[in-house]
Amino acid sequence: MARLKCKITYDGSQFAGFQIQPRKRTIQGELEKALTKMHKGLPIRIQASGRTDTGVHAKGQVIHFDSDYDIPTVNWQKALNTLLPDDLYVIEVEMVPDTFHARYDVTEKEYHYYVLNIKEPDVFKRNYAYHFPYKLNLAEMQRACEYLEGFHDFTTFSSAKATTKGSKERMMFQVSCEKRGNEIEFIFLGSGFLYNMVRIIVGVLLDIGQGRRSPEDIEKLLEKKDRQLVGETVPPQGLYLWQVTYNNSK
Amino acid sequence: MARLKCKITYDGSQFAGFQIQPRKRTIQGELEKALTKMHKGLPIRIQASGRTDTGVHAKGQVIHFDSDYDIPTVNWQKALNTLLPDDLYVIEVEMVPDTFHARYDVTEKEYHYYVLNIKEPDVFKRNYAYHFPYKLNLAEMQRACEYLEGFHDFTTFSSAKATTKGSKERMMFQVSCEKRGNEIEFIFLGSGFLYNMVRIIVGVLLDIGQGRRSPEDIEKLLEKKDRQLVGETVPPQGLYLWQVTYNNSK
Repeated sequence: MARLKCKITYDGSQFAGFQIQPRKRTIQGELEKALTKMHKGLPIRIQASGRTDTGVHAKGQVIHFDSDYDIPTVNWQKALNTLLPDDLYVIEVEMVPDTFHARYDVTEKEYHYYVLNIKEPDVFKRNYAYHFPYKLNLAEMQRACEYLEGFHDFTTFSSAKATTKGSKERMMFQVSCEKRGNEIEFIFLGSGFLYNMVRIIVGVLLDIGQGRRSPEDIEKLLEKKDRQLVGETVPPQGLYLWQVTYNNSK
Repeated sequence: MARLKCKITYDGSQFAGFQIQPRKRTIQGELEKALTKMHKGLPIRIQASGRTDTGVHAKGQVIHFDSDYDIPTVNWQKALNTLLPDDLYVIEVEMVPDTFHARYDVTEKEYHYYVLNIKEPDVFKRNYAYHFPYKLNLAEMQRACEYLEGFHDFTTFSSAKATTKGSKERMMFQVSCEKRGNEIEFIFLGSGFLYNMVRIIVGVLLDIGQGRRSPEDIEKLLEKKDRQLVGETVPPQGLYLWQVTYNNSK
């Protein structure tokens, strides 16, 4: 029995999210279908670093699964990519010890969020960035990002629907935003993320960029631990799971 | 009665081409549906600068139509965009004399073609560029482009299926290719184009970039006027109708 770790990328726009669901096209569903076909009908289950919602993309999601096959990793990659649809691609396959777990062993996760900050929409970006046509003060947003870095309880910035029990404290190694052409790129690098956390934070940062809040509000919002205090979750198509890091690997 | 000229953009990936067809989602179909709804059921027909095939995109297609409504052009734009799906967008509306014709009055057309020239495919580019993983000699391709500029009979580079009667002579003002990050951008600016012409020429340019042909072959191929002499038409998703120019307007 071998345990295989795969780095995968997907365009989330045509998927009903990561998690398998009956009669819906999901990333887990497509991966398990391909693996089961390779194993002549024997059901193969995968584990991911975490789920992504409908419309959310991945540049570097990580999954693992077990197999009895003894195949070189490059052939695993080729075989899977032959069976997978063209909006889901295996970038890399690695043999790992059977103690490795794609979800429990995560040490860092990186998310990016893209805002298309021009007046007119762009049909080619509709599934790949959030079109936000209003003027933004980037310096104020950057100042707000600094308040988010470090170790905090992010209850205020997590979905009320979250089923997560246990601590809502997370370490943010980097929170930043930069102008890239006509887009604003938000980068979040942290020990872990609560449900909808990135999309709720970006919503607040956009409020700050419009002058509806001050960067200093972040400190107070973190302290209050109340989801009701902040606005809307921004839409999924701007969000990318960029990279997942494990102990001794990057 | 007013004649309206519209500059439109569309992501061609979810359309069965420009031309209206029963039970298929087409650009003409969506535009005429929106216009007919605006005119309370009165059927409105549009004319375009030319058709585009399934999967082909437009950054600046031009259409015209007639209407009895007397509405400011900016309101036309808003009303249409409210009714159109989000992969089809009206960039600009202009009132024109009723002698204007979107197809017959074209003086120049510009097409771009994008080749993703890296080893691994990119799921986010699958509908927006042609993934071509082989090494290319850009200088040789650029030299070949020069042979295509000027006034030529392009029979060799047009689809055998073409129904066009009349001259296959066209003026190419610019044919060029440049590296843009990991993509190669081909630009074609001409007085007009034959069916599949850009996609057939790009196929030959890729042959030249791989050393299967020499740039000098272009001259001979143009002279022979025989479609059988050249290879495959490259796929539609790399092609963009970039701009259409009319007399006294750009």
